[in-house]
Amino acid sequence: MTVAVEKLRGSSWIAGVASSSGGASFHGYNPVDGSRLEPAYASASPAEVDSAVAVAEEAAGFLAASSGKDRAKLLRAIADGIDAAAEALIVRANLETALPRPRLTGEVGRTSNQLRLFAGVIEEGSWVNARIDTADPARMPPKPDVRSMLRPLGPVVVFGASNFPLAFSVAGGDTASALAAGNPVIVKAHPAHPGTSELVAQIIVEAVKANGFPAGTFALLFDAGHEVGAKLVQHPAVRAVGFTGSFRGGRALMDLAAKREVPIPVYAEMGSTNPVFILPGALKTKSEALAVGLHQSFTLGGGQFCTKPGMVFVEDQHAADFTAKLRGSVAESPSFSLLTEGIARVYGEGIEERGKLATVTGTKSDEGFAAQGTLLEVGADAFLADKHLSEEVFGPTTLLVHCDSTEQMMRAARELEGHLTATVLGTDEDLAAHGELLRVLETKVGRVIFNAFPTGVEVNHAMVHGGPYPATSDGRSTSVGSLAIFRFARPVAYQGLPQFALPMELRDENPLGLHRLWNGSFEK
Amino acid sequence: MTVAVEKLRGSSWIAGVASSSGGASFHGYNPVDGSRLEPAYASASPAEVDSAVAVAEEAAGFLAASSGKDRAKLLRAIADGIDAAAEALIVRANLETALPRPRLTGEVGRTSNQLRLFAGVIEEGSWVNARIDTADPARMPPKPDVRSMLRPLGPVVVFGASNFPLAFSVAGGDTASALAAGNPVIVKAHPAHPGTSELVAQIIVEAVKANGFPAGTFALLFDAGHEVGAKLVQHPAVRAVGFTGSFRGGRALMDLAAKREVPIPVYAEMGSTNPVFILPGALKTKSEALAVGLHQSFTLGGGQFCTKPGMVFVEDQHAADFTAKLRGSVAESPSFSLLTEGIARVYGEGIEERGKLATVTGTKSDEGFAAQGTLLEVGADAFLADKHLSEEVFGPTTLLVHCDSTEQMMRAARELEGHLTATVLGTDEDLAAHGELLRVLETKVGRVIFNAFPTGVEVNHAMVHGGPYPATSDGRSTSVGSLAIFRFARPVAYQGLPQFALPMELRDENPLGLHRLWNGSFEK
Repeated sequence: MTVAVEKLRGSSWIAGVASSSGGASFHGYNPVDGSRLEPAYASASPAEVDSAVAVAEEAAGFLAASSGKDRAKLLRAIADGIDAAAEALIVRANLETALPRPRLTGEVGRTSNQLRLFAGVIEEGSWVNARIDTADPARMPPKPDVRSMLRPLGPVVVFGASNFPLAFSVAGGDTASALAAGNPVIVKAHPAHPGTSELVAQIIVEAVKANGFPAGTFALLFDAGHEVGAKLVQHPAVRAVGFTGSFRGGRALMDLAAKREVPIPVYAEMGSTNPVFILPGALKTKSEALAVGLHQSFTLGGGQFCTKPGMVFVEDQHAADFTAKLRGSVAESPSFSLLTEGIARVYGEGIEERGKLATVTGTKSDEGFAAQGTLLEVGADAFLADKHLSEEVFGPTTLLVHCDSTEQMMRAARELEGHLTATVLGTDEDLAAHGELLRVLETKVGRVIFNAFPTGVEVNHAMVHGGPYPATSDGRSTSVGSLAIFRFARPVAYQGLPQFALPMELRDENPLGLHRLWNGSFEK
Repeated sequence: MTVAVEKLRGSSWIAGVASSSGGASFHGYNPVDGSRLEPAYASASPAEVDSAVAVAEEAAGFLAASSGKDRAKLLRAIADGIDAAAEALIVRANLETALPRPRLTGEVGRTSNQLRLFAGVIEEGSWVNARIDTADPARMPPKPDVRSMLRPLGPVVVFGASNFPLAFSVAGGDTASALAAGNPVIVKAHPAHPGTSELVAQIIVEAVKANGFPAGTFALLFDAGHEVGAKLVQHPAVRAVGFTGSFRGGRALMDLAAKREVPIPVYAEMGSTNPVFILPGALKTKSEALAVGLHQSFTLGGGQFCTKPGMVFVEDQHAADFTAKLRGSVAESPSFSLLTEGIARVYGEGIEERGKLATVTGTKSDEGFAAQGTLLEVGADAFLADKHLSEEVFGPTTLLVHCDSTEQMMRAARELEGHLTATVLGTDEDLAAHGELLRVLETKVGRVIFNAFPTGVEVNHAMVHGGPYPATSDGRSTSVGSLAIFRFARPVAYQGLPQFALPMELRDENPLGLHRLWNGSFEK
């Protein structure tokens, strides 16, 4: 902790230097005891927002012209810097979030691995989707030479998330994918972990400088309130937004972006209740393991995961044993420290509001931002009659929905809104007998999971961490995994350009050795 | 013509049958003489809109489960039907639009070729971007099996365009790409060519039936006003919108979609002035060919192309010869029949409003919706001082902007808004000397063209017919070429599913022989 605090300036970072114009200040807090953490952080002023965007806009041309290999070096330097600073980051993040050390140790690795995943993608280079249709002067009318590839958008604004102080924050997935695609990034820090944010920003600033990228490539802005974020999203030079947070926050940004003179895409990952369907075969053969696993999954990280399983559907006639075991696990739940006072308060209100449901609770500490593990239970008829019951309660709780038949469970599935994930727990025979359930669920979510809990989100090439609204603003994309690079790029076609004027990716001899579509056929 | 009119019912087509509940009726008009064409067309009622969407929603599951090969058969059947009906389509479209027979003959071929292009893409199948990351139980924590691919969105609404009665209308690019991706389509017909629209709809309805697809796969709705379109875009079961038309119309749909409880993507191709930069070397060596070519390009189809070159930048010191020749060509322009009375009126007003600019005009008929070819000229200072001068005037006119220096031309380039295309005419030496111009232009448009005019839009795999707002609602996509299929799909990941429950595209043995990303490497 000492190491970390000495380095902290309590200020935004713009154009490679600490910047503070003395706006309203705020502090991080230790969720374990509610104590205030030093230093104070100054909110960025409107002039600082303008300045960060202006230098980002200037840097955009350099980034757009840079090679994938050069940007990969930058990403790898950031990853190395994060790994080297792991201890300081873990100490500070633990202070600011109360997330336990093993979880934060894992998150450091996840963050640097994400950066290296994107580095690998842009070193290889084929992600640009190079397509070449060559000329045919003999055709009537003559067929032109047309070549296209993905190109960056320009300055991207990224909002840090409260629940992943590293992996979805300053150098998180959105920053990594936006930089990888060749865009400058301006991060609006989450105010719940300002020190962690600043430490990571210093690592990025250093890497930008050391690798010869312009200082406008990256900026970090702080704000006690919402003004900085709103101004960023409305700034004419900003071209896209990445956000992970609440439904209310995400929708507000979507609405701001849609009302701009020039609307821009907002990739907001908002909220999700991640329905789980437990099928009869599984209930009969492994109810204890399922109950223990489910309890672990919905209380993991204090239940503050986007993919926390928040609704569980069982057919009652097979579920007595499972239900009893789940109740038992929850009754023995320890107390959890939530990330912020606000999250703890809203969690308490959410549970109280649902007090009419059958509840089983664990213990709760009196200190800091504490919460108790809670199981809520409701019959499917009551569930289907009250839309609010399918909304997310952020924290260590889940809602067990007792169905009286397969038909009722299917009805619940059909009436789901958009979620990040849907999970089916069952035997292969269960799955074969419930083909229609799978077909319905895949229209509702970004990821369908069989026989695992949704809280592990693997960072790879196939992952989709997205899903239809209201889980995200835009179900056509993902915020985790290498597919996320496509958020921050658009195709540009070049017609009739001589070889020397074409990007390397589109030249005849394929100097970068890319997989390309050549006259409609894949080539390497 | 006789053949066509006998087939026309003057009604919408819903669930495979003609449907008319007697809403406000309207007619097509012959632009050559302004005469009214039979039959009258009834606007769809709110109940008919609901009904069309309801059967589309029912059909969505069938389409999502259908194979690419089966959908390709449907697309090929529609293409064959259009080719077989070419003569009737050309006769009717010529009556309704006054577009000349050779142009319409070409458009029939373009329309059926577009359908076959998408058929080829989905027969081959790799467009789904299949990605497979296999399990590793030995890793800690165990690495899950995750596989993802693109899946359809659900019911898509397509608005027919006025200026392409076939290729951007009922069976145009948006319909082809949405069906190809596995989505039901509801077309709102453009009221300027209702008969052509209905003839094409009958072909699609027939093909849907003959190929065993559900009747809700396709619907065509008519409307004298904007109610049907607005209701469609706001309908909860509609998942995406494709539109080609005016800026005002497109933005109105964007705003409606953004305000929905569940916002949906709108792909609106709106307006573009398609800047052309003529560099000194070209002005010196081929001013006559450029003047003739430019005149042909901006008057082609009565100047009613999205990619009409509407602004031309020249350095004055080299442009005297070119300017004189261009003025001469325009002065000899014949009269043009525009598509609708409204377009002709707005064109006349636009030219009149710009009356203070130097103008050269051709002849104008007194009959029907006539317009004269017009050259407007302005100095770059005046151009840069008046933003409205860079806005599109739909019709046979262009604006020649006289620059006094390369710097002034570059300033004009930097201040451009989003357009579909930017064209550079020059020698290779010109191009080498103007690298910065290319770099600026590629940030402003979807397609950069060298030494050709923008009005030819090749339908192929590399084409990008899109560009930053306000040219389109969403610069991340294209409405022409096979890349357009990505508009109407979203990725879905499947985690831990046994082989039998996976889509064919994602099974280990790769039964469809797709190009896939297997543990990060390309395989076939």
